[in-house]
Amino acid sequence: MLPKIDTLIDLALEEDAAFGDVTSQSIFSADHLSQAQIMAREDMVVCGLEIAQRVFQRVNPSIKIELETTDGRQISQDRIVLRAKGPTVALLMAERIALNFLQRLSGIASFSRQFAKAAAKTGTGVRIVDTRKTTPGWRSLEKYAVRCGGCFNHRSSLSEHVLIKENHITAAGSLKNAVKLARDFAPHCAKIEVETESLNQVKQALEAGAEIIMLDNMLPPQIQQAVSVINKAAMVEVSGGVRLDTIADYALPGVDVISVGALTHSAPAADFSMIIAKQPSE
Amino acid sequence: MLPKIDTLIDLALEEDAAFGDVTSQSIFSADHLSQAQIMAREDMVVCGLEIAQRVFQRVNPSIKIELETTDGRQISQDRIVLRAKGPTVALLMAERIALNFLQRLSGIASFSRQFAKAAAKTGTGVRIVDTRKTTPGWRSLEKYAVRCGGCFNHRSSLSEHVLIKENHITAAGSLKNAVKLARDFAPHCAKIEVETESLNQVKQALEAGAEIIMLDNMLPPQIQQAVSVINKAAMVEVSGGVRLDTIADYALPGVDVISVGALTHSAPAADFSMIIAKQPSE
Amino acid sequence: MLPKIDTLIDLALEEDAAFGDVTSQSIFSADHLSQAQIMAREDMVVCGLEIAQRVFQRVNPSIKIELETTDGRQISQDRIVLRAKGPTVALLMAERIALNFLQRLSGIASFSRQFAKAAAKTGTGVRIVDTRKTTPGWRSLEKYAVRCGGCFNHRSSLSEHVLIKENHITAAGSLKNAVKLARDFAPHCAKIEVETESLNQVKQALEAGAEIIMLDNMLPPQIQQAVSVINKAAMVEVSGGVRLDTIADYALPGVDVISVGALTHSAPAADFSMIIAKQPSE
Amino acid sequence: MLPKIDTLIDLALEEDAAFGDVTSQSIFSADHLSQAQIMAREDMVVCGLEIAQRVFQRVNPSIKIELETTDGRQISQDRIVLRAKGPTVALLMAERIALNFLQRLSGIASFSRQFAKAAAKTGTGVRIVDTRKTTPGWRSLEKYAVRCGGCFNHRSSLSEHVLIKENHITAAGSLKNAVKLARDFAPHCAKIEVETESLNQVKQALEAGAEIIMLDNMLPPQIQQAVSVINKAAMVEVSGGVRLDTIADYALPGVDVISVGALTHSAPAADFSMIIAKQPSE
Amino acid sequence: MLPKIDTLIDLALEEDAAFGDVTSQSIFSADHLSQAQIMAREDMVVCGLEIAQRVFQRVNPSIKIELETTDGRQISQDRIVLRAKGPTVALLMAERIALNFLQRLSGIASFSRQFAKAAAKTGTGVRIVDTRKTTPGWRSLEKYAVRCGGCFNHRSSLSEHVLIKENHITAAGSLKNAVKLARDFAPHCAKIEVETESLNQVKQALEAGAEIIMLDNMLPPQIQQAVSVINKAAMVEVSGGVRLDTIADYALPGVDVISVGALTHSAPAADFSMIIAKQPSE
Amino acid sequence: MLPKIDTLIDLALEEDAAFGDVTSQSIFSADHLSQAQIMAREDMVVCGLEIAQRVFQRVNPSIKIELETTDGRQISQDRIVLRAKGPTVALLMAERIALNFLQRLSGIASFSRQFAKAAAKTGTGVRIVDTRKTTPGWRSLEKYAVRCGGCFNHRSSLSEHVLIKENHITAAGSLKNAVKLARDFAPHCAKIEVETESLNQVKQALEAGAEIIMLDNMLPPQIQQAVSVINKAAMVEVSGGVRLDTIADYALPGVDVISVGALTHSAPAADFSMIIAKQPSE
Repeated sequence: MLPKIDTLIDLALEEDAAFGDVTSQSIFSADHLSQAQIMAREDMVVCGLEIAQRVFQRVNPSIKIELETTDGRQISQDRIVLRAKGPTVALLMAERIALNFLQRLSGIASFSRQFAKAAAKTGTGVRIVDTRKTTPGWRSLEKYAVRCGGCFNHRSSLSEHVLIKENHITAAGSLKNAVKLARDFAPHCAKIEVETESLNQVKQALEAGAEIIMLDNMLPPQIQQAVSVINKAAMVEVSGGVRLDTIADYALPGVDVISVGALTHSAPAADFSMIIAKQPSE
Repeated sequence: MLPKIDTLIDLALEEDAAFGDVTSQSIFSADHLSQAQIMAREDMVVCGLEIAQRVFQRVNPSIKIELETTDGRQISQDRIVLRAKGPTVALLMAERIALNFLQRLSGIASFSRQFAKAAAKTGTGVRIVDTRKTTPGWRSLEKYAVRCGGCFNHRSSLSEHVLIKENHITAAGSLKNAVKLARDFAPHCAKIEVETESLNQVKQALEAGAEIIMLDNMLPPQIQQAVSVINKAAMVEVSGGVRLDTIADYALPGVDVISVGALTHSAPAADFSMIIAKQPSE
Repeated sequence: MLPKIDTLIDLALEEDAAFGDVTSQSIFSADHLSQAQIMAREDMVVCGLEIAQRVFQRVNPSIKIELETTDGRQISQDRIVLRAKGPTVALLMAERIALNFLQRLSGIASFSRQFAKAAAKTGTGVRIVDTRKTTPGWRSLEKYAVRCGGCFNHRSSLSEHVLIKENHITAAGSLKNAVKLARDFAPHCAKIEVETESLNQVKQALEAGAEIIMLDNMLPPQIQQAVSVINKAAMVEVSGGVRLDTIADYALPGVDVISVGALTHSAPAADFSMIIAKQPSE
Repeated sequence: MLPKIDTLIDLALEEDAAFGDVTSQSIFSADHLSQAQIMAREDMVVCGLEIAQRVFQRVNPSIKIELETTDGRQISQDRIVLRAKGPTVALLMAERIALNFLQRLSGIASFSRQFAKAAAKTGTGVRIVDTRKTTPGWRSLEKYAVRCGGCFNHRSSLSEHVLIKENHITAAGSLKNAVKLARDFAPHCAKIEVETESLNQVKQALEAGAEIIMLDNMLPPQIQQAVSVINKAAMVEVSGGVRLDTIADYALPGVDVISVGALTHSAPAADFSMIIAKQPSE
Repeated sequence: MLPKIDTLIDLALEEDAAFGDVTSQSIFSADHLSQAQIMAREDMVVCGLEIAQRVFQRVNPSIKIELETTDGRQISQDRIVLRAKGPTVALLMAERIALNFLQRLSGIASFSRQFAKAAAKTGTGVRIVDTRKTTPGWRSLEKYAVRCGGCFNHRSSLSEHVLIKENHITAAGSLKNAVKLARDFAPHCAKIEVETESLNQVKQALEAGAEIIMLDNMLPPQIQQAVSVINKAAMVEVSGGVRLDTIADYALPGVDVISVGALTHSAPAADFSMIIAKQPSE
Repeated sequence: MLPKIDTLIDLALEEDAAFGDVTSQSIFSADHLSQAQIMAREDMVVCGLEIAQRVFQRVNPSIKIELETTDGRQISQDRIVLRAKGPTVALLMAERIALNFLQRLSGIASFSRQFAKAAAKTGTGVRIVDTRKTTPGWRSLEKYAVRCGGCFNHRSSLSEHVLIKENHITAAGSLKNAVKLARDFAPHCAKIEVETESLNQVKQALEAGAEIIMLDNMLPPQIQQAVSVINKAAMVEVSGGVRLDTIADYALPGVDVISVGALTHSAPAADFSMIIAKQPSE
């Protein structure tokens, strides 16, 4: 379990039930028990099941959970993914929070799966990777969902991988010097990547010894030129405006990686619902 | 400023810069200063400017910020929304986090604005409201963005408003008894809303004295019948599957409120970028 | 369990035992076991038993607890309410914290029970409700204790229910406009309450469509007039200076609710003690 | 400022305004300014002014505060204790929380002042001290209020001072051995106190070298005997059931300290209110 | 378990595994199980075993732990101190954090044991005590390790014990007045200690009734004089620059306590490693 | 400022002054002002000045600080490094905490400087790097101190850099397969390092395409062989038991990096003290 999950669950509980669930507490006695099941309302790649489980158990540790599938699976509409059994008030208090985690993470996983399939179809072995354009507080979760969908992660933070951009180059005086300064300061285990906007910069990055060259907002013909200049001497990353329907245009031979911010910032939610069984606790 | 903002900002800083920004620290001295500006990359309703300001100032309190517009405004592509001036390393460390708040909140505000306009066009005075389908940890922010977009909020949590659903009715023995139990327990300042799935239930809810009747997943003809049964004796809320292009079908005279989960769970991000001025600190 | 309980328990542990219990650690070996029981030292309505249980288990999860009664029960002096069994040092380290929760919550529940009985005796069906005059950090607990005592809750926070006071009216230009502004902005599920100080204001509130009218610091004759003006068209809440011995004077027919700040801010503590059995662990 | 103040203020803000102040936000624009003043509604010893100040500034750092008196002063009804100037919505959002801190701390300070005066009247130099019977989370604040009232503090926690009770004596085999074990383990800077219930135990405590002897639940004649047995060889603390009206009976010559749990657990709240000036910000 | 342990463990997890263990997750499936053992790589006094256990269980509650010895024991190189069994990824994720706690606490315990033995050899009954020179966030842990090593604790904080230094004396006008002011303000259960730098100050402290007199940075001959002046009328604490090889010089008859900052601030780490058994999960 | 600094400062304040500073509050009035200066008591590389500044300002924001030097400077005994001016009680309450941060970080920086100089003397350009053997909660601070001392950082966490050890190789079936699995899973921006214990493993790592080869616990002759086998095709890291006095033996030509755990886990504290000026506030 990643370290920040409980922090997010607690924030969710505070915002949704700081003073309890007034409706359910009106109607159910504290010892009323039920069985509940969470069901997918559309075809999707499911993601977030262990977090959903933890939500229920944090609301009330006596709730028993069975997971009916595992994260990363493609499932069909109406598939039951989780069964819960325990005090009814606690089940209803946890319901929306558990669903909110599932809908977001499964949304990202499902959206990523589409990109992964489109990439696979090109047959070039290109990787689709995420970016740092994630929901504040949710980065480790969203990057996990991207992997569940079959895509890959780019760097997780500013702290370990070097990515030199225009500002850095200007301040350093030259691209070459920027790479040198980073090489001198950064851990020896950090790769150095340079963001380039022209063929000229690509050449400079190559000479400076960059290990990854990002082609930023270039069009396919320009990318093709860059790839032949680089000629396997560095890894090639394409970035900027690539959509599901244009992946094939950008996944040219020699392109190793395409980064797509939309994986995490614009995936639509997946639809789930929770149902309480009519005959409770038998 | 809402209470949980700093918690979210701190989570974001920890996930993005727990060990600093290795690239920028390689290249910029600690006392290197710059001016930066955040710019909208598309037409949108902007939202989150004060939070973005707080992100910069939390990374380094010496950063000076000027906001060039205010939350809730419709702005055009290339509009500068925020100017920042201060230590370059701090500006670059705050950049992505500030943008991540802005892109999500402005995305929700812009999406909500479309719904608000569609509702206004019907001329019925119907309100589009959000739901509890929000990102865990982000509810107060997302509900704020919905208001900036011109839509309205539904209840913020389980704790104050009563919403009786199928489970509650079953457990209480009857809809009437469920309403009675809630009336007996809940604060006198809580309105009582009942979720109904049939005209029969609508009638029962009315008799039980519900102050709001939710018509769940009903189609327009059924809604029309329900509205005439209710006949202003309770507020009418339509819920379930209403999309931007079908609002006009559901916003029948007598419908007071339409709730739309997509406002918060499926709004695409708005696009922003930050630019460091070429001539720093003049 | 409400979300903030563990936060309060942890604060209590840090302030009472940041460096352990120097006396008990001097004398008891780490594996010395005991049985302890918590006893009421006076007649009272007990409240806080599950929190007390959690205190013990947070200090040491191996402590076994049996609750001998349930929250909200009227019990007599010398009644044992909780039995605990486990490592002696842990029992003694948890003792005072568990008692401090119990003494405050049972104090509020017992005090509320007196008000609830006095209200019942009037036969008018009036509800005694609490206010927002609670101990910072303790609101959800104190409101729970009020319910255990047989009284009711008013709004839990500023966030969901509308309560228009003098300041709001002045700023809005008129009472009518204040109600209109609130109606336009607030969620449709919020009731609107207006605090009034004169019969004239009562009439304005009625015309403006307020759903609850608070009669603030009015004397019984004035209340009687207000009630007949309102004539069931809004809920009537009496507020200000009502004491246990004057409830009957204020609980006039037509008064729905009397709010009493003292329930939470001035209830005297209930008296408990913990006893370690002479013959430990048999 | 004590370390935990901000934690308590944040808990209070979360419970009272997690989603803002729906009433005030309906009516006041974000840039509407006001002046407010907090006034004592009864004679009292005031306590908590700097905390109240911090509440306002945490809600909005632009609020300007002037304190009109200082903690520990005896003030009269209608005395203004604090003036605040700033955004109206922020002032109203902070109001109740600031008052809730003031009412509790001033309540304890005022109650303690009565005990301090009663003790002073005996002319014996006896100290009235608090106990560990404090509100969880509030101990350092409540002990501060006790000092503002003119009484004194007993130990703050279990961690530094040794207080040997019946359980410890039983486990150690004898009072003498219990003192020896504590002397061997505890820091050399800890005094050793023994709780005694009989003259025989007093003698044993004296022989064992206890530096403070607590006479637990003894009546005045028994206390007198104990005092003459102890004969200044240890400090004498009287504990158990001493009330404001019986202090004189217990404050016998030779009694150094009387501990009173009620100072913190049963002090009634002091009454304050906040008024917004009619003519804002001129 | 002390209150702040989980906070420190969580900080450690966030800094070491905010985005998981990329190496182990590449190679081990989520359900791959192993057995691991932690072994001492040198002779030492072990300390921190229950914390190490908690680290593993916090990473994954399903990990089973057996402790093979207890804190405070002198153990030899190659001694296995803890066995763990559970999911391999979780074991490897917890490994370094568990070792980092063990290496520091066992380092302090081992270093303290050397001091305790040197003190014992003098036969004077002198106590070696720690100081407040501890690692921020770690004080209760480090003081526990000192005790495991056989040394003793000085005061844990500024809050309970009085220690009057040069600054206080200057401000009070005289040493005598400083002691009087402290006696008037501090809890009756606080001993009063005075730091002295000359024989003259020692005499003043004695007259003022100090219960402990600290001889700060005095050399053995001066200490001897001070001891005979004090003549058992106060406890004698020697402080400043005492090293393992000079304890015998300072532990003169009549010296009760020697305080040594190095116990906590300069103890070298003890060496441990964790080994995964070749044949997992049999 | 790194994200976790305030958390550590708050932990330190809670453990040292949860109930204030009883000595200083006895003697100094709340408005008594002083000037204080922190002085190095030995030659050292100073580190932690901005953190020390923040400690003072967190205790009381009105304290004014001047830093007299900057982190990473070699300074001489008696050099004043920081001047503070403000309320005396606050200065004394912050004193020990500020010193505790400075003593630890400057200790690590000074110790690292010795290693950096020894490495420089070899003339091979070898880097001395730290490890993950850091104090839980302190990793980002300790890694910063290592850089201030002139050494370099290894990976900050398990999350971004791949380091394949014996366990991983066993589980993967072969070193080659372990590298392949990591290459398939890890971000494309992660370098892959393999820990080797024999020349045979070095060859396998080379064939598998490892970008860094760690020679674990090898002696100089074996290292020499490995270096010539690797022949610049991968970076070479030496690890295990290298001490200040043996660096020259291990820094053979072709060795890029030597990692030394002792930099962070066994650096002795640097000695500082704070002095209050005799004539306060002029």
